[in-house]
Amino acid sequence: MAPLDDPTGAVAALDPSEITIATVCSHTSLQIFDGARKEGFKTLGIAVGKPPRFYDAFPLAKPDDFILVESYPQIPKITKELQKRNCVIVPHGSVVQYLGIEAFEKLPVATFGNRNVLRWESDRDMERKWLTSAGLSMPREIPNPEAINCPVMVKYDGARGGRGFFIARTAKEYEAGVIPGKKVMIQEYILGTRYYLHYFFSPIHEEGYKLTQGRLELLSMDRRDETNIDEMYKLGSQETLKRVGIYPSFVVTGNIPLVLRESLLPKAFEMGEMVVERSLELFGGMVGSFCLETVVTDELEFKVFEISGRIVAGTNPFITGSPYSDLAEPGISTGQRIAREVRVAMEQDKLSEVLS
Amino acid sequence: MAPLDDPTGAVAALDPSEITIATVCSHTSLQIFDGARKEGFKTLGIAVGKPPRFYDAFPLAKPDDFILVESYPQIPKITKELQKRNCVIVPHGSVVQYLGIEAFEKLPVATFGNRNVLRWESDRDMERKWLTSAGLSMPREIPNPEAINCPVMVKYDGARGGRGFFIARTAKEYEAGVIPGKKVMIQEYILGTRYYLHYFFSPIHEEGYKLTQGRLELLSMDRRDETNIDEMYKLGSQETLKRVGIYPSFVVTGNIPLVLRESLLPKAFEMGEMVVERSLELFGGMVGSFCLETVVTDELEFKVFEISGRIVAGTNPFITGSPYSDLAEPGISTGQRIAREVRVAMEQDKLSEVLS
Amino acid sequence: MAPLDDPTGAVAALDPSEITIATVCSHTSLQIFDGARKEGFKTLGIAVGKPPRFYDAFPLAKPDDFILVESYPQIPKITKELQKRNCVIVPHGSVVQYLGIEAFEKLPVATFGNRNVLRWESDRDMERKWLTSAGLSMPREIPNPEAINCPVMVKYDGARGGRGFFIARTAKEYEAGVIPGKKVMIQEYILGTRYYLHYFFSPIHEEGYKLTQGRLELLSMDRRDETNIDEMYKLGSQETLKRVGIYPSFVVTGNIPLVLRESLLPKAFEMGEMVVERSLELFGGMVGSFCLETVVTDELEFKVFEISGRIVAGTNPFITGSPYSDLAEPGISTGQRIAREVRVAMEQDKLSEVLS
Repeated sequence: MAPLDDPTGAVAALDPSEITIATVCSHTSLQIFDGARKEGFKTLGIAVGKPPRFYDAFPLAKPDDFILVESYPQIPKITKELQKRNCVIVPHGSVVQYLGIEAFEKLPVATFGNRNVLRWESDRDMERKWLTSAGLSMPREIPNPEAINCPVMVKYDGARGGRGFFIARTAKEYEAGVIPGKKVMIQEYILGTRYYLHYFFSPIHEEGYKLTQGRLELLSMDRRDETNIDEMYKLGSQETLKRVGIYPSFVVTGNIPLVLRESLLPKAFEMGEMVVERSLELFGGMVGSFCLETVVTDELEFKVFEISGRIVAGTNPFITGSPYSDLAEPGISTGQRIAREVRVAMEQDKLSEVLS
Repeated sequence: MAPLDDPTGAVAALDPSEITIATVCSHTSLQIFDGARKEGFKTLGIAVGKPPRFYDAFPLAKPDDFILVESYPQIPKITKELQKRNCVIVPHGSVVQYLGIEAFEKLPVATFGNRNVLRWESDRDMERKWLTSAGLSMPREIPNPEAINCPVMVKYDGARGGRGFFIARTAKEYEAGVIPGKKVMIQEYILGTRYYLHYFFSPIHEEGYKLTQGRLELLSMDRRDETNIDEMYKLGSQETLKRVGIYPSFVVTGNIPLVLRESLLPKAFEMGEMVVERSLELFGGMVGSFCLETVVTDELEFKVFEISGRIVAGTNPFITGSPYSDLAEPGISTGQRIAREVRVAMEQDKLSEVLS
Repeated sequence: MAPLDDPTGAVAALDPSEITIATVCSHTSLQIFDGARKEGFKTLGIAVGKPPRFYDAFPLAKPDDFILVESYPQIPKITKELQKRNCVIVPHGSVVQYLGIEAFEKLPVATFGNRNVLRWESDRDMERKWLTSAGLSMPREIPNPEAINCPVMVKYDGARGGRGFFIARTAKEYEAGVIPGKKVMIQEYILGTRYYLHYFFSPIHEEGYKLTQGRLELLSMDRRDETNIDEMYKLGSQETLKRVGIYPSFVVTGNIPLVLRESLLPKAFEMGEMVVERSLELFGGMVGSFCLETVVTDELEFKVFEISGRIVAGTNPFITGSPYSDLAEPGISTGQRIAREVRVAMEQDKLSEVLS
């Protein structure tokens, strides 16, 4: 495959023989550090204030060393140190969120995967263009409130982590619920069961589920556990609760392991394949871990409501393997799979194909 | 134990030294192939059209070879080939569904387990006779709509995979919901938590949870994940949703791992024991994997709403072991347990007791 | 650390070189026996009537021997036998429930952990004093029905295992639901997702998540599966069901594995640390396994609604490891962790610090 963009020159500047795997101490850091160590790398945790103590209880996942910052947006200030230690940053959701997309894009430190994916997944319109032009089926977007003719999910602009969402089943409910003047996105609400599919695209491996270039893996899947929506029903119906001022929220608090009906796996692979192939055309390829966030309807159709272009927290139940990854290599986690990719790329002199 | 029926002569015709484990490429095929390989067997996948590509991503579970058919009902046309390769077919839900009971019964290829179980589990009346005469407690059947005096589950005749079911809490709701003229089965709706218990009955092992003949194992359990009923509550109450034309459906899309309160295990074993003992009397014994589909009420009583006489998809979360099977043999799946049974029967010259 | 209280002299009388791990045959006994055997101990099951047959299906977890009693309250009658065999009883929920707190406290047989914890966790007022004075946030207690100004959980005095609970969203609903004359506890109902956090406090290990004395581990977490509340929504809204005489109940029937958002782990550890430190001041320390039963709100705050001072059934999904314990020692269960603690204490001549 062609090398990924290296606009900051960070990949070119890397000493391949001395790589340290670094990430921010949150999100999926336990499996990233554990996996990196298993692949023989030194590890470095980026933390705020002081080294988090909880790693002491997980000795296999404790990074060899910490770099401390005053706050996460200060990470660019430790660039020199990260370069000096030959760091490859494994970006996860918190890295991107804490640092901001622009700062992350410009950070002159080698990172795992293609940083170009960020623009495409963080902008709702570009994301939709990517996924639908790849051939995936997404929930319809409703252009304006008058057009609401089915249950909808309403998301305020910039809503994060499930706050600022609400559900309306009719235009009338929308009017009753919306905060006037705020910009919103209105999306068809797809009724069904949710599956978060954790893929891995390797541009440097050619055996396996072979794409035009590289190969695709499916490492695990989960369902996000969201407060308060997931246990709200225990208190009564939403209709009644609304009357006492209680509304659903959608804040992720954890993850539940599950598996998919096996007859849906071929479709799951095709979907992964289509987004990767399209990413190669659009921005040079989405390399490494990614996640399709789907709903399966009672017609057994997948609707994709989002894509994450990196390791997701849904892989955390699978730190020592999953019913899927165990069929490729017993006991491997997504964190270790990432470190493995770096190691193999290093050995084959192909780091420029997996880092950016 | 007595040999199982061998009406097609397929078992007698088998060359025990050259067995290939074969199954249809769906449902639980990943663990069946992975398990068969671990026990030293050659493996063969029966697929429609062309070899499914997703196996390439799961190298440990990829069958050694494929036989292709135009459509699954064409399987009888490849009988000669299956015989020539000394195949033992491991039947799973899709095998039976795609092929039809009658065609499967007549297929002159050796299959794992006792084919006689099919008649008893696929006919609702025979299934009820079997389970209740074994001493299990089932949801009451309601003979006619006038007799509805509790919440009921209504199933149209021939309904499959959760389509064509509906819930009515009163006779009035039944009348409002039913399609006139269609034949239905009306069953008491049991409120509680569902546990799908995955057993294994070995007629050739005598140590362990010993029955009159053979021994019983409990390998794992799961809860089926059903669209749209399992996430419907997020959109509002069923009562309100009905008004906008949204009704619950019960289509299985995946499986969630769980464990049972340990004090219920003795009862779980007794139930398994009772259905096996009764099957020995009724039709020569249910051999190998089976599943009791239960609800546990708040009186901590099991109500059994169905039995499956073969490997179920609920075993898929446990491809490298479960909290139960790990206490018998660490890391064993139901797929491997099946292959193990074939191997041991082969070594002990008892294939006629586990194949039919 | 200082030795624990040994009021019955049972610990002093123990021959350290001949310890047998014993427990009642229920609850978490499979992992306790499996773990004890892995650490090299003899094992003894205390059962009613006759040896439970289901252990035969789990050979790795079958105790070496059984002692039979007529009923669990008769356990004090086998004291001599337990002493003679140098038993250390691992208490679990059923041990305490079957025997009664007072009888358990006085039993002159060495038990794992500090028996003083029993008084503090079994009395709602003392439990609240302990947890809140440790700095944990609990649901508010509502002093009287007139003060109900939010949804509440109502628990009748002595209610056990989820029976005798009900939910009221208003004072009016409370009046409609309550049984006059019965003593109740009224508690704020916290809306959110439930996480049952399984900790282990070792007073004899100093490395790891270090407390003033000893160290803290986080071995796993689960969500309790409760009938009928967890699947009641399928039948319709609680409001409608109430009209046909169907009410929610909260009886535990099993456990579902899950993981917590990683950014909440530091807080989870702090909470565990605070209750242990406070227990050291209040009653000499809570040693070994314990569980905080929490709800996470959509402000990502933990509310602790209960503490269990011993191994909980929620550890049962993790008999061969969890995504957390695997990062300390791959494959270890809480049952094995307990046996390990006894073994290490024995080797270091510190049994008096972990037994009482």
